[in-house]
Amino acid sequence: MSEVHAVRRSALRDRCAAGGWAAALISRPANVRYLAGSAPAGSALLVGPAEDVLVCPGDLPPDASGARVADGVRLHRLPTAGGDAAVAAAGLAASAGAETLAVEEHHLTVARHRALVSVAPRMRLTDVAAAVEQQRLVKDEDELACLRIAAEITDQALGELLESILVGRTERHLALELERRLVDHGAAGPAFPTSVATGPNAGAAGHLPTDRRVEEGDFLSVRLGADYRGYRCEIGRTFVIGPSPDNWQIDLYDLVFDAQRAGREALLPGAECREVDHAARQVLDSAGYGGDLSPWMGHGVGLEIGEDPQLSPSAMGKLDACVPVTVDPGVHLPGRGGVRIDDTLVVRSEADGGPELLTITTKELLAL
Amino acid sequence: MSEVHAVRRSALRDRCAAGGWAAALISRPANVRYLAGSAPAGSALLVGPAEDVLVCPGDLPPDASGARVADGVRLHRLPTAGGDAAVAAAGLAASAGAETLAVEEHHLTVARHRALVSVAPRMRLTDVAAAVEQQRLVKDEDELACLRIAAEITDQALGELLESILVGRTERHLALELERRLVDHGAAGPAFPTSVATGPNAGAAGHLPTDRRVEEGDFLSVRLGADYRGYRCEIGRTFVIGPSPDNWQIDLYDLVFDAQRAGREALLPGAECREVDHAARQVLDSAGYGGDLSPWMGHGVGLEIGEDPQLSPSAMGKLDACVPVTVDPGVHLPGRGGVRIDDTLVVRSEADGGPELLTITTKELLAL
Repeated sequence: MSEVHAVRRSALRDRCAAGGWAAALISRPANVRYLAGSAPAGSALLVGPAEDVLVCPGDLPPDASGARVADGVRLHRLPTAGGDAAVAAAGLAASAGAETLAVEEHHLTVARHRALVSVAPRMRLTDVAAAVEQQRLVKDEDELACLRIAAEITDQALGELLESILVGRTERHLALELERRLVDHGAAGPAFPTSVATGPNAGAAGHLPTDRRVEEGDFLSVRLGADYRGYRCEIGRTFVIGPSPDNWQIDLYDLVFDAQRAGREALLPGAECREVDHAARQVLDSAGYGGDLSPWMGHGVGLEIGEDPQLSPSAMGKLDACVPVTVDPGVHLPGRGGVRIDDTLVVRSEADGGPELLTITTKELLAL
Repeated sequence: MSEVHAVRRSALRDRCAAGGWAAALISRPANVRYLAGSAPAGSALLVGPAEDVLVCPGDLPPDASGARVADGVRLHRLPTAGGDAAVAAAGLAASAGAETLAVEEHHLTVARHRALVSVAPRMRLTDVAAAVEQQRLVKDEDELACLRIAAEITDQALGELLESILVGRTERHLALELERRLVDHGAAGPAFPTSVATGPNAGAAGHLPTDRRVEEGDFLSVRLGADYRGYRCEIGRTFVIGPSPDNWQIDLYDLVFDAQRAGREALLPGAECREVDHAARQVLDSAGYGGDLSPWMGHGVGLEIGEDPQLSPSAMGKLDACVPVTVDPGVHLPGRGGVRIDDTLVVRSEADGGPELLTITTKELLAL
């Protein structure tokens, strides 16, 4: 993997050269990890001018810093506690004679930025903007392999839960059990807080588990994902509790299923992101649910659970091959519950077999 | 509780008046929650000039926003998705005629700050600095009651774990089980990622659970805490696995115990924060462990797990009554393991009985 990180940093160096910047200071943790192989808490990565240096706070003992860095990155631990790694890295850049340093203005706070200026008053600070996020969009084979394993773990955890007795258990307990099972199967942890929603809560976007217990007749919707080596996937499924679903439940499920399938089928290299959103959204819209839908029908995944691209009506840009995204439409009827169906897929050309589905748990409406 | 929040906002308004600011824009989540009673993801609170407004992103459906705000706060949901609540709040302040707006420069990124400027170019932005963090230092009775319950939950979860069989189980599983038990007993969740460290990992600050299994003869150190209504406490204990500890284990334990007791006994209103650090640190220092100690011997807790005051050699300021802090010294011997003992206490005068210990699990060296 080390060579991979060197290639990534080299691409950022090219971006610096094009911008006329001597060096770039990367502070956003997912970006640091992408370029250096690891991102100890509070660390910052200086790319160039002379060398690449990962600056780590002096607060953690060496064995807790998790600092196994990629080849070609020098590890620099601050000698004293309480220091700011980004400020120290800016000082290193200035000492090395950098005249212009590109920083992540979308990550640095105003106060930290001011501290950078004061440590290197003669160095010009500019904005590296989303240069690293752009690099992260298209995944390489190692990254896709991590996402595939993350999805496999997620499917296993969900599959085991479905074999257990659900009635009478609380949303909170089911969520904890899913997270335990993710770790059982090799996840570093959950990719995001697991959502379990029952009855009237089912299908609500971003629902956080409560003490409500599963009851007969409920919709039950879950959303979970594994973090495997930093790579995060997402699955969402909705079930019915009891011997057989009501008609309104079947109808709502079929509708969301159709919307989600339309979104999945729109995932092709070259497709506009907003077209994918539209494909799923218009199915729900034409059934009269347009007003209350979530603002996107899917989003990129990788080292962060919500990264570019966004699949939303206002999204600019097109999909490329090897971009992993979710397709996650849902409808929530206040007081009654609802349905949400969510997969992680990798965009592939039709010649390559079309979109690659990573989360393979069935999307039939199961009555549990 | 609502009146409490109004009083807190009124104190911030006084600070604004003293600074000549028309209004304050609070974006740091713990500060928003402290002043408004709740802090939905991505929200921002405008305090003044005419009224107090909690601005929430339009992305979440109403039932997922968790927006039960305190009396006297108007809830304003952005009409469209993807908007920035802080930027919208700055716009509201400008429309209301505010000439100067104090913002949290230690929380806003450079990019967001620029967006604020562009939405209200004639309004002067200044720095509210740590005004709200200062207000949060001394806790009221409601806050202390939440911390007491958080500590009770934490003691229960730890106590139950100690009754179970530990040998052969992995750090990761023990950590997950502790977190499940926290929720079982009423926590909203863990206050921070639970640390379980065995054998050579024991006693290492900030250790993240691995797949190492508990073995006979190990030191086992755990650090956990409950989040109860947003308030977070912390406990750390170290045990020995097997019938009886080795002599070196007993000696190291006694040493850290002495250091931790010295720190606890130094907690009095008016004590310098660095004196408390010194009291604990010098015990370890004089035994020859001074070089590898963590940079603080304790820290404040509340709506965040690491808040002011810091108990460190360079800390300025004195302790007040009703300030909850941890005292958490430890020693880690690379390759062998170590000991960490950590309590949450509330600073009280001697007339009030001295420091109030919230985490009451025994600090005897248990052989499990």
